[in-house]
Amino acid sequence: MIIDVHGHYTTAPAALGAWRDLQIASLKDPGKAPKPSDLKISDDELRESIENNQLAKMRERGSDLTVFSPRASFMAHHIGNFETSAPWAAICNELCFRVSRLYPRHFIGAAMLPQSPGVGTATCIPELDRCVHDFGFVGINLNPDPSGGHWTSPPLTDRYWYPLYEKMVELEIPAMVHVSTSCNPCFHTTGAHYLNADTTAFMQCLTGELFKDFPTLKFLIPHGGGAVPYHWGRFRGLAQELKKPLLDEHLLNNIFFDTCVYHQPGIDLLTKVIPVKNVLFASEMIGAVRGVDPQTGHHYDDTRRYIEGTANLTEEERFLVYEGNARRVFPRLDAALKAQGR
Amino acid sequence: MIIDVHGHYTTAPAALGAWRDLQIASLKDPGKAPKPSDLKISDDELRESIENNQLAKMRERGSDLTVFSPRASFMAHHIGNFETSAPWAAICNELCFRVSRLYPRHFIGAAMLPQSPGVGTATCIPELDRCVHDFGFVGINLNPDPSGGHWTSPPLTDRYWYPLYEKMVELEIPAMVHVSTSCNPCFHTTGAHYLNADTTAFMQCLTGELFKDFPTLKFLIPHGGGAVPYHWGRFRGLAQELKKPLLDEHLLNNIFFDTCVYHQPGIDLLTKVIPVKNVLFASEMIGAVRGVDPQTGHHYDDTRRYIEGTANLTEEERFLVYEGNARRVFPRLDAALKAQGR
Repeated sequence: MIIDVHGHYTTAPAALGAWRDLQIASLKDPGKAPKPSDLKISDDELRESIENNQLAKMRERGSDLTVFSPRASFMAHHIGNFETSAPWAAICNELCFRVSRLYPRHFIGAAMLPQSPGVGTATCIPELDRCVHDFGFVGINLNPDPSGGHWTSPPLTDRYWYPLYEKMVELEIPAMVHVSTSCNPCFHTTGAHYLNADTTAFMQCLTGELFKDFPTLKFLIPHGGGAVPYHWGRFRGLAQELKKPLLDEHLLNNIFFDTCVYHQPGIDLLTKVIPVKNVLFASEMIGAVRGVDPQTGHHYDDTRRYIEGTANLTEEERFLVYEGNARRVFPRLDAALKAQGR
Repeated sequence: MIIDVHGHYTTAPAALGAWRDLQIASLKDPGKAPKPSDLKISDDELRESIENNQLAKMRERGSDLTVFSPRASFMAHHIGNFETSAPWAAICNELCFRVSRLYPRHFIGAAMLPQSPGVGTATCIPELDRCVHDFGFVGINLNPDPSGGHWTSPPLTDRYWYPLYEKMVELEIPAMVHVSTSCNPCFHTTGAHYLNADTTAFMQCLTGELFKDFPTLKFLIPHGGGAVPYHWGRFRGLAQELKKPLLDEHLLNNIFFDTCVYHQPGIDLLTKVIPVKNVLFASEMIGAVRGVDPQTGHHYDDTRRYIEGTANLTEEERFLVYEGNARRVFPRLDAALKAQGR
């Protein structure tokens, strides 16, 4: 079984974007804000948006199940305030839930949180509870920089984030640490901000002692861990300089990397330097890089080819990357699969 | 001959730091600011700081010449204003010049610029002129984020930077794009900010058309290019999405990567995906990672071992990485070497 732990609903029907545009236009005149119930998208529209896109590609590429969350770049937590993010997260999560109900063997949800810069993280808990208890979601996306490229929130090791971590631990859900659109002109969203955030989050954890306070907390660092595996020697050396334990012990019971690295040499490096138990299959399709690589004739984001193509993994290890690790890191996913007899 | 294109004077005598402390303490009372002439460091002190450190390691590891610039994390352009940065850059550059005069076969200078957030880049030109004409410097370090982790300056493709580029082109000197200390608590300086800046700078160039305006401008991206080579497929794919030419043509006549990647798999990847003509040997010793890797028994930053150890390079290609490319990217370095009969 092949589980893709990193999929976003990037192909949601246009009505969703139109609703958001109305919401943004009403920021200065909240009376004109659209209501969640104003959004009308039929099951047929959902089916069309999925069957011709994600599901078609899953069938083509042979993956079975996607952990599916709202479009990352659309979260845009920097827009408005909590009152803006709350209904926006709610309707985005609901759409992912509806997709998971239409295709229960192919999609299972992960939640977008109604984060807002400077707002306490406990405000996200009701939506999180709803997503887990009512929608059967198995994970969340946690934005370490809700300001969108200005990095005004404290590091992930700060107590600011603890209410959320307590809830995550209680619910046994991991967080993918995933930023959203950059509104800082220095950072291209998918070419710089995403990768920088991955590296930043890892280094925040390295310098801190977060996992002493939360030994069962789990973070998934997307995009193959940003710059981290490529600079694994640097990070091992920095941990040494900072008198931290070896990274295996200090971080690798809690931090995991996905395989969203879009060429063979990158996946070869990832699977060489990071222990197999810490690598989870993912593609983030249909996402930032949708084209066909002229060097291979295949889609850049068809990451399964690289997992198949690497000499670094045995068949048993491939099973861990494709399925075993995901079941361990996402206990609620494992439970949901077992309930389906899988 | 082995040229290390990335060395900083991290071991300067303590008097330099003390001068800077006085300068910072006087920010609110400029009358108390120390004068550059207050700094007293003898040639013997310089010799001691170099012979027991950089030069000892160069001899041990077999590198011949280091392109030597002031300590990157000490530049701290976010402190004070241009009047603060100007004398600080001047004395830091002067020390590197004195080292290069004491050891002309082993060190040659690259300049720190007196940048300051929000100040026009033309203000850096007098110091740059002095460093090149009076000190024989062959390159500069250009800080794309003088705010120190708040990223308040425009992207490198913006006309804000053009006065500097015009001067660089006129003088035929490349810039290493190198940030300084992060004063944003989100970013660890050497574990996040440095790597993020490398990735960010590359992506800024990818989205822009800077090298159409300056076809001979040259940027060296340190730390092995941040996350870029590991995600080379992503960047090739993003260039495609953005309807840019192939990266070879769009960026690789102007952008180069150093080899400051502190483990063998990283150097293997770098030398596999980036054309050899774009890779320049460097170690950044004695820098962020000074320890011995328990996995190899050698210093993490002894990058020559990885260049020797990679199966990806022929002897001819090693010559390019060690020497040939540096002579091409730093024409003034080549001229200085030739003047020495090397």
